[in-house]
Amino acid sequence: MDDKGLMEKLSLNQITTEQWGVQEAVDGCVRAEIPWISVWRHKVAEIGLQESKRILQASGMKVSSLCRGGMFPAATAREREERLEDNRRAVEEAAELGTDTLVLVCGPGPDRDIDTSRKWVADGIDKLVPFAQSYGVKLGIEPLHPMYAADRSVISTLGQANTIAEQYHPGQVGVVVDVFHVWWDPELYQQIERASSRIVGFHVSDWVVPVPDMFKGRGMMGDGVIEINRIRQAVQTAGYHGPIEVEIINQAIWDRKGNEVLHEIKERYQQHV
Amino acid sequence: MDDKGLMEKLSLNQITTEQWGVQEAVDGCVRAEIPWISVWRHKVAEIGLQESKRILQASGMKVSSLCRGGMFPAATAREREERLEDNRRAVEEAAELGTDTLVLVCGPGPDRDIDTSRKWVADGIDKLVPFAQSYGVKLGIEPLHPMYAADRSVISTLGQANTIAEQYHPGQVGVVVDVFHVWWDPELYQQIERASSRIVGFHVSDWVVPVPDMFKGRGMMGDGVIEINRIRQAVQTAGYHGPIEVEIINQAIWDRKGNEVLHEIKERYQQHV
Repeated sequence: MDDKGLMEKLSLNQITTEQWGVQEAVDGCVRAEIPWISVWRHKVAEIGLQESKRILQASGMKVSSLCRGGMFPAATAREREERLEDNRRAVEEAAELGTDTLVLVCGPGPDRDIDTSRKWVADGIDKLVPFAQSYGVKLGIEPLHPMYAADRSVISTLGQANTIAEQYHPGQVGVVVDVFHVWWDPELYQQIERASSRIVGFHVSDWVVPVPDMFKGRGMMGDGVIEINRIRQAVQTAGYHGPIEVEIINQAIWDRKGNEVLHEIKERYQQHV
Repeated sequence: MDDKGLMEKLSLNQITTEQWGVQEAVDGCVRAEIPWISVWRHKVAEIGLQESKRILQASGMKVSSLCRGGMFPAATAREREERLEDNRRAVEEAAELGTDTLVLVCGPGPDRDIDTSRKWVADGIDKLVPFAQSYGVKLGIEPLHPMYAADRSVISTLGQANTIAEQYHPGQVGVVVDVFHVWWDPELYQQIERASSRIVGFHVSDWVVPVPDMFKGRGMMGDGVIEINRIRQAVQTAGYHGPIEVEIINQAIWDRKGNEVLHEIKERYQQHV
């Protein structure tokens, strides 16, 4: 792909500029000529759904996804129903904000029984699908790095995500490939191929050595060891031609000026994605 | 298994008492009636191989393994040969110290090309096998948690370890199952079954939430989310009846009195392993 084609896919995942609210992030992207944005629910909640929608529409920006639904496992049936209800709200918000993709971070288990928690994830998705479909929203299962299996998601590999997604039509459930979470997987390229026509999101950042923090330790593209370009090409070969989100959760980046960060993102994206 | 049978398998992996040298660790185990010990090379180096051997023999303790060989990938052929030479020394030390098992931490890649580094691991093991066999030493491939793929080992799953080990006779190359590294793996029980007759080591600790440190953050059995007893039973069903090493890399434990730590290990081992 030529550089122009690639730049047209660039999306700012809003968590990368956690220091900014929705208005600032949108203004920053417009200034930096970044055409897409992925919106986080806690940022939407700060100013309300309608105001967020107004800002996004006025800017002309396209919304690549809403982050995030999921968190399905919980100790009691009542809590699991509450989680599901929250996912329904997330679907409504996604539709209202003008994106057809809700990213799912599936959740950790409430206890030591990881198999049952994985079953609760599958059950939760199964219950959510008809509701999401009625809003024209696809569910994107994002496997998280295994180091988050105890506190963020029991779905740790693209293989697991594919196995769940394959139960549904590609327009209902897909997978999200985030290089930070999957780069180490010996089955990576095989599972990307298996996900053909089901990839609904592609996220980039980097794995720096040593990782500065378990949660807020993702690196800028080019600063780490991930073969980002190789993975991007594999995802493209598997039929994904949608937006590419830069999603960097990193305290040092949050402490910088947002405009500088966007400038660097564009440079690194061109060089390394 | 009855408790007595289990206690007879208990082994102190020496890194758990990093505050102690070989003599102190051996004395501590004798006092605590822990019958096995796994020895680390940097501790042996502090006092020399012959002195370490003398201490171990005088104590009557059994040596479950030597930690560690591996670290095969390197940027140049010359460096890779140096790594191999170091592995040959590790094999000699294992034989001299009276254990038939050398644990392999296979090493990170020197660059972004993880596939080539994985090939170098397989090549290194292949070259080491005849030498190790001539000393009666088995190579135990220990898959490390994927969060160490960039700085400790490109072998991240039991599946990968099995695929390499299966190229050899079970008396030459086996796998080491460490619950901290593999608990999250959706293929865990299937891969333990696949490893039947090839498991040459079993390590326990726990995954606490949140993990206090990427490297020195392992927990005491019972303090975390790992189904240790379930994994122990699976390993046993797969034919492993050897020593069970308690391997906890944790600064807070290193800051405690070694004797107290051994006392707690015995309690937790009885309750949770």
